[in-house]
Amino acid sequence: MIKRVLGIAMLAVLFAGPAAAQQASSGVSPFVMNTLFIVFCGVLVMWMTAGFAMIEAGFVREKNVVNQCAKNIGLFAIASTAFVLTGYGIMFPGGNWIMPGIFGYSGAIEIDGVVEGGADFVGRGHAGASDIFFQSMFCVAIASIVSGTVAERMKLAPFFIFTAILTAIIYPIQASWTWGGGFLATDLGFIDLAGSTTIHVVGGVAALTGALFVGSRRGRFVDGKKVALGNYSMPLATIGAMILWMGWYGFNAGSYLSFSSDADASNVSRIFLNTNLAAAGGVITAAFVSYFREYRFDLAFMLNGALAGLVSITAEPLAPSPFMAFAIGMVGGLVIFWAIQLLDYFKIDDVVGAIPVHLFCGVWGTLAVAISNPDATILGQLSSVLIVITYVAITTSLVWIALKETMGLRVTSVKEDVGIDESDYALSN
Amino acid sequence: MIKRVLGIAMLAVLFAGPAAAQQASSGVSPFVMNTLFIVFCGVLVMWMTAGFAMIEAGFVREKNVVNQCAKNIGLFAIASTAFVLTGYGIMFPGGNWIMPGIFGYSGAIEIDGVVEGGADFVGRGHAGASDIFFQSMFCVAIASIVSGTVAERMKLAPFFIFTAILTAIIYPIQASWTWGGGFLATDLGFIDLAGSTTIHVVGGVAALTGALFVGSRRGRFVDGKKVALGNYSMPLATIGAMILWMGWYGFNAGSYLSFSSDADASNVSRIFLNTNLAAAGGVITAAFVSYFREYRFDLAFMLNGALAGLVSITAEPLAPSPFMAFAIGMVGGLVIFWAIQLLDYFKIDDVVGAIPVHLFCGVWGTLAVAISNPDATILGQLSSVLIVITYVAITTSLVWIALKETMGLRVTSVKEDVGIDESDYALSN
Amino acid sequence: MIKRVLGIAMLAVLFAGPAAAQQASSGVSPFVMNTLFIVFCGVLVMWMTAGFAMIEAGFVREKNVVNQCAKNIGLFAIASTAFVLTGYGIMFPGGNWIMPGIFGYSGAIEIDGVVEGGADFVGRGHAGASDIFFQSMFCVAIASIVSGTVAERMKLAPFFIFTAILTAIIYPIQASWTWGGGFLATDLGFIDLAGSTTIHVVGGVAALTGALFVGSRRGRFVDGKKVALGNYSMPLATIGAMILWMGWYGFNAGSYLSFSSDADASNVSRIFLNTNLAAAGGVITAAFVSYFREYRFDLAFMLNGALAGLVSITAEPLAPSPFMAFAIGMVGGLVIFWAIQLLDYFKIDDVVGAIPVHLFCGVWGTLAVAISNPDATILGQLSSVLIVITYVAITTSLVWIALKETMGLRVTSVKEDVGIDESDYALSN
Repeated sequence: MIKRVLGIAMLAVLFAGPAAAQQASSGVSPFVMNTLFIVFCGVLVMWMTAGFAMIEAGFVREKNVVNQCAKNIGLFAIASTAFVLTGYGIMFPGGNWIMPGIFGYSGAIEIDGVVEGGADFVGRGHAGASDIFFQSMFCVAIASIVSGTVAERMKLAPFFIFTAILTAIIYPIQASWTWGGGFLATDLGFIDLAGSTTIHVVGGVAALTGALFVGSRRGRFVDGKKVALGNYSMPLATIGAMILWMGWYGFNAGSYLSFSSDADASNVSRIFLNTNLAAAGGVITAAFVSYFREYRFDLAFMLNGALAGLVSITAEPLAPSPFMAFAIGMVGGLVIFWAIQLLDYFKIDDVVGAIPVHLFCGVWGTLAVAISNPDATILGQLSSVLIVITYVAITTSLVWIALKETMGLRVTSVKEDVGIDESDYALSN
Repeated sequence: MIKRVLGIAMLAVLFAGPAAAQQASSGVSPFVMNTLFIVFCGVLVMWMTAGFAMIEAGFVREKNVVNQCAKNIGLFAIASTAFVLTGYGIMFPGGNWIMPGIFGYSGAIEIDGVVEGGADFVGRGHAGASDIFFQSMFCVAIASIVSGTVAERMKLAPFFIFTAILTAIIYPIQASWTWGGGFLATDLGFIDLAGSTTIHVVGGVAALTGALFVGSRRGRFVDGKKVALGNYSMPLATIGAMILWMGWYGFNAGSYLSFSSDADASNVSRIFLNTNLAAAGGVITAAFVSYFREYRFDLAFMLNGALAGLVSITAEPLAPSPFMAFAIGMVGGLVIFWAIQLLDYFKIDDVVGAIPVHLFCGVWGTLAVAISNPDATILGQLSSVLIVITYVAITTSLVWIALKETMGLRVTSVKEDVGIDESDYALSN
Repeated sequence: MIKRVLGIAMLAVLFAGPAAAQQASSGVSPFVMNTLFIVFCGVLVMWMTAGFAMIEAGFVREKNVVNQCAKNIGLFAIASTAFVLTGYGIMFPGGNWIMPGIFGYSGAIEIDGVVEGGADFVGRGHAGASDIFFQSMFCVAIASIVSGTVAERMKLAPFFIFTAILTAIIYPIQASWTWGGGFLATDLGFIDLAGSTTIHVVGGVAALTGALFVGSRRGRFVDGKKVALGNYSMPLATIGAMILWMGWYGFNAGSYLSFSSDADASNVSRIFLNTNLAAAGGVITAAFVSYFREYRFDLAFMLNGALAGLVSITAEPLAPSPFMAFAIGMVGGLVIFWAIQLLDYFKIDDVVGAIPVHLFCGVWGTLAVAISNPDATILGQLSSVLIVITYVAITTSLVWIALKETMGLRVTSVKEDVGIDESDYALSN
């Protein structure tokens, strides 16, 4: 009897089974879909490196533009390598906490996971190597933020060493607090989807401490007033900002890390839409403010307005309605307007305006999560960002001091006056 | 008996059922796939904005390049916001026609659809927010087209207001006629897959009326002859054209709006191939014509040749064979050659050659659908494009007149001579 | 009895069947997924064309920059068309070998395959048109490599004719040996996943023969010593290198041609990660070498270092561990350092350094496969690359000679001195 039933069942398989089996062998899995999404978003995030390079090349003076380009290609290579070397293992400790919730290291095991074929060791439903690739592109942005602020007077060698320490150790430790299951996420309920704090505030604080330790450019502040020093090329700055705008879709959307269910598809689409509207809001604020104050449209302000909007929406690009996203971006445009005046008051020289954009709008974006996402509290957001600011201010200051005392941070006055390019980059082409 | 049969059937489920069930829960749906395709195409279309910005920055004179960059970042922010605000609801009225087939508004309902989670309210098999994102990137191109033609003498403020009206109202109304189920599609059988008419002719006509109302640049036509005024940077123009070429794959392919069946995959692949060959055809025409007429290769003509080929294939990038696509693009290269002479004859000053490229090749591409696609008729195509031209000519003229009479369209002669940058963009960096 | 069993079986279908059937109609197939992956990688590869254009525009002198831009947009149009016309049919002969394993032509049949709807005639699990599109973007790189080396003194017309012959005939013949099932793959076990030999060595050899036949620029070697001639714009060269870096992900990953199984997803992710680390390794070598030799960071060397790393990992981007990939890239940086000195010794004038990057690192990358991939032998790799070098050296030399004897390769001395732009590109804008 059992045999006959089995026979019938097998016959049933002849009808239903093959179709299902064929499906099982030929369908595309969520794992595949998520991975495709993540690697392409990783490419967009990589592209942001070129955006930073061009906006910085555009904003520095012609005499330092080659130096600035060398800084950007160098930091990209260093950051994306240093992060893979130790940063990734620190950022995602898995269960391997050394100090619970604060510091851990999953280390070589994870890297071997890649070497052995890229299994889904991250347990997130996508290929391990895609995660490492994406996260390594992601962390480059931090070094790029610092690069712009300290342009035109910091030596490259200490900057590159700083970049390595920042991306191999300093950044991933605090990233583990939020994204690696650490104490900000578990104890304070901190929400920061794509990194208004975890990336942009961190980069902004490192830029601020860098600006303080390296000092202002010669001639930047005369008789207590800021002097416009001019810049190399606004078209290059423009394409830089547009590249960043483009790459930011991948930055925010890719942080969702999943694109396999219908809900994923709807949510990630909304992230694309909200990210764009926030950037547009920042530009429109800058256009209005400059037009009604000075009867002209200030291009530099508009470009930074776009970035301000983008940083502002980065912590929570999903929960706001499209029009709330636009409003969050508009406020971002105001935030940099005020922040620039604050920096001028304190005579802090930020060549590209990275501190207003990334630090101040990063804080604003972090707090704005509490407006749109009921899972976030203003207290949890505020205390988390303050903890991160304190941690990064202290650690980066220690590194800057160590570098200043050993190799020195600043080019000679002569070099600064004639231009770093002239003295260091005599072309050998 | 029935119980035993059920028992057997359930046993069968043990074999076939779980596999199917697992599939049902873990497979990737067409909705997800279509949405991924559309958001990435949307990114490519966004990227075209940078292409327009660079080609325009390259073609204007150095004294106006900052102004042109401000115009491009500003129009992007304004257009992509204005379209989301009212344009999308007008473009896709759903059933809510106010004047059947001519004007409708689905309005706030659709936008709320996004806010509520991005359901597939568009009924096209992809996330609603992905559709809004893609379409909002798409419509920016129209404003970018106008921006190039009227460069170097139009004030930014009226241009920005024009951009808002164009993308919030004028463009979406006629787009609803073709893509929103309106009368061109239903009554005239009009076929325009990616917008040779709906985007490029519209932008070209708006550019033409703009050029007529704002007038030529000072010194452009002397004693009835066109004077070459020089330009800022051909390398920037070159990367601009290449960016547009790249973004156009997303523009044409994304308009297919579906990438989930094997047939979709084959068809969309062919759109990529055809789009590329049409662009190549335009370049090759320009190379031949300039070489045999002047014994040199005219870079500006070759760059516009690429765009000419791209506009020409935009109405129907799928039906032609690859070699027919190439031929359609080659003819596009000839079309701009003749159109430039026509504009010169009428002393119309088009700084970047946008009218020949977008208006004339847009008409050619629209008519060429009748050659390759048996569903299209030459009469239906021709009458549709004429209706759109008439509509856009009238509506944009009214807006230009209103702006001219109130705030004025043109910078002062002094500003034009010294350069808008010098007078408006003294750097405050 | 049989009827009753069938009845039961059909009842089973009521349970299991519909789910499976629904899956069959609504799931996404591997064919769709692979095709999406390939067309987007094709877009990234297309983008490399802009990278080559910008790095070349940056490295030539200002007086020749317009000429160099015209060369790049022209070669893109010509190469991508010529390859579709005959190259693709030669590269993938299917069974249609005329000389077995050496030369075949599937010709018009394959092209018709596209025309008829893009069936999967390539038998690789993705749309035929996606394959043609991707491969046609791929082959453009070869012409771009040559373009940089022979800059500033070769006439455009013979270069364009050379480009057409190179991509229509010379390149696809040897590509069929490796990727079309020819004798290198079958007899020598040659492994070259993304083309260190098949693309980069081929381009590098064509550049070398071009440099020899056209000769050095006037004033390049004086009294036996190389003279630095200066260049137009390092920021443009920088964005060019970053564009190439970005596009290279698609170049290497797309060559895997499949992204539908979980194993595909893991493997391709690893290609992204390895490709990036190899590029980073090249940059870091260049930074170290220039810093410790000259106490400065040499931007041109760092940019070429990135490309050196990328070419080195191209033959086998999957098998190495991430750290081996990094090491392979670092060695690439050394290879170009030595190769540049070798070229200088032989007084070969390579404007952008394409021969060190593409030929020398191409050979290194080809041999390095034997280190990481047990399926490759050092002998098989070496003999294959030598065969390709010999074939390309002979065939390209014949073409260069024919062009030199008929129309001449070189601009006049006067043109070279005043600049090709001045003499050929008087702006008619």
